[in-house]
Amino acid sequence: MDNKETEIATLGEFGLIDHLTKGVAPHNGSTLKGVGDDCAVIGTGGDTVTLVTTDLLLEGIHFDLTYCPLKHLGYKAAVVNFSDVYAMNGTPRQITVSLGISKRFTVEHIEELYAGINLACKVYGVDLVGGDTSASVTGLLISITCIGEGEKDKIVYRSGAHDTDLICVSGDLGAAYMGLQLLEREKAVSRNATGKDFSPAFAGHEYILERQLKPEARKDIIATLAEHDIMPTAMIDISDGLSSELMHICKQSGTGCLIYEERIPIDYQTACMAEEFNLNLVTAALNGGEDYELLFTVKLADYEKIASLPGIRIIGRITEPKYGCMMQTRDGNELPLRAQGWNAFTTA
Amino acid sequence: MDNKETEIATLGEFGLIDHLTKGVAPHNGSTLKGVGDDCAVIGTGGDTVTLVTTDLLLEGIHFDLTYCPLKHLGYKAAVVNFSDVYAMNGTPRQITVSLGISKRFTVEHIEELYAGINLACKVYGVDLVGGDTSASVTGLLISITCIGEGEKDKIVYRSGAHDTDLICVSGDLGAAYMGLQLLEREKAVSRNATGKDFSPAFAGHEYILERQLKPEARKDIIATLAEHDIMPTAMIDISDGLSSELMHICKQSGTGCLIYEERIPIDYQTACMAEEFNLNLVTAALNGGEDYELLFTVKLADYEKIASLPGIRIIGRITEPKYGCMMQTRDGNELPLRAQGWNAFTTA
Repeated sequence: MDNKETEIATLGEFGLIDHLTKGVAPHNGSTLKGVGDDCAVIGTGGDTVTLVTTDLLLEGIHFDLTYCPLKHLGYKAAVVNFSDVYAMNGTPRQITVSLGISKRFTVEHIEELYAGINLACKVYGVDLVGGDTSASVTGLLISITCIGEGEKDKIVYRSGAHDTDLICVSGDLGAAYMGLQLLEREKAVSRNATGKDFSPAFAGHEYILERQLKPEARKDIIATLAEHDIMPTAMIDISDGLSSELMHICKQSGTGCLIYEERIPIDYQTACMAEEFNLNLVTAALNGGEDYELLFTVKLADYEKIASLPGIRIIGRITEPKYGCMMQTRDGNELPLRAQGWNAFTTA
Repeated sequence: MDNKETEIATLGEFGLIDHLTKGVAPHNGSTLKGVGDDCAVIGTGGDTVTLVTTDLLLEGIHFDLTYCPLKHLGYKAAVVNFSDVYAMNGTPRQITVSLGISKRFTVEHIEELYAGINLACKVYGVDLVGGDTSASVTGLLISITCIGEGEKDKIVYRSGAHDTDLICVSGDLGAAYMGLQLLEREKAVSRNATGKDFSPAFAGHEYILERQLKPEARKDIIATLAEHDIMPTAMIDISDGLSSELMHICKQSGTGCLIYEERIPIDYQTACMAEEFNLNLVTAALNGGEDYELLFTVKLADYEKIASLPGIRIIGRITEPKYGCMMQTRDGNELPLRAQGWNAFTTA
């Protein structure tokens, strides 16, 4: 080891991955797409491709078992991987599950976790085909890899957006983030409460709690787009926040973008909670993360088709790169988007 | 959570996985083999299949950075996955690498680790196609998933051994285990040494150290078998020790086995080190683990062909299940084999 010492936080997760993987050329013709999209894409020799994605969840970094039931955690750990496969316009088929388990966990705990994983597999039609299980020094860790399938000529990358394309988003944003704020608040309150009297103030907040604790992947949106013969030009799932993901699309497509603040879909419960917490609602929607909605672009010619679909909102359009990544606020100003997405290396 | 509490150590890794995955039927026709072999096997619709395997390595459980250089660790972490693909008679093609990294690691440390991973990829012709990187609360963790390719009708499972088949093993056994003992001893000595004067007593032990710190996967053996038109009936890689792996083959094939102590291949350096440590040499070879050699069975009719190949030793034969899994010792006694393979849940 030499004497240079660079803190990992100075690069962040994406910077570190870019730094480590740049300039490595593939050895295999079957490697169609490596690092840099929601999934890697591997040719099979036929009309289908294999999609691969992986997610690592660590106790104390990504989840808190004080308020996250193990069954929900298992469900979520699987679903966030499925979401990455749908974001390529593919279908998740298999997962492997690796666990690191510290001594405080019993067989019954791991059964709960697996009940959630198995439920997610059942709901999404995915098979658990392998994994690795080990003791860990501290805490629980879950590493899931998902294998998906797609049609070679229907895979949608982050890099396919073009000037004038419409920017669309499914569902609504910011709810999972506000759910997390509520859970953290009630956790703090419970610490100061005296014994049995404490009961968390969750009534009326069911939607935002479910969005945080038991998110779903938008299999239905992929099916709807196919039904209506709409082929997105670029797509990504929103795990780190709308701003960050939209900037990934623009960077990889070599474009700019303009979105409209008033078009960003936000649920009523999310808005109420933001007000209660005195948090900026748009910031929560732009940078909150863990929404697992799909962000995609379609050709302008698909406007009529896409505008008629429920559950999908057109929030702006792709522009030439010289215009940068901008948001028009409600008062008519244009502000540059900033990627303030969640960063494990600076928040840990 | 209910009140039952079963310690995970009571089931062990294999017991826990069996317990959690039993009775789950696959949803997808493409899932040809799930849990229970070196890799999962996924159909692609054509003549090839996709192989998937994953390994989790945790600091403080699987490796000790006091004596394991990060570059070697990266190399080994990749190679142990390739070994699983070769054990199916397949070819590793792609890997994903997920890392959990605590604050004591710098960008330069992770560069060292990646240098080892990239070297292994280059040597074995594998592409790094993705992963996930996160901060961790304590220590380093590496989760690698390897995607391989095989011909559908040439995949070798653990379950294909039959009565009278010959049991073969590549290379020699027990060296990685003795290398670990040496490294642990020198670590203990260095703790008691006064400052700069300490220099570890590694001279003459290079082979066993390399077997522990920088193992290779037996790509060459797979190529040799194919060249000589020998198709193994069953195969597994030796990661947990010969005894444990042979019992996996016998259990899944529904057979017994008889191996001969005097036929077990052991290197001279391994034998010397065992004598120095006053350890039973055969126990080290049977249960030491981390050899990453191939254990396989071939038809009796292939005797002439296999006996002529260098680097492969016939150590016994498959028997009817009623005879159990036995070893004939040098003095002519028959003892039942016991799976004393390494268990993260009891040794941690």
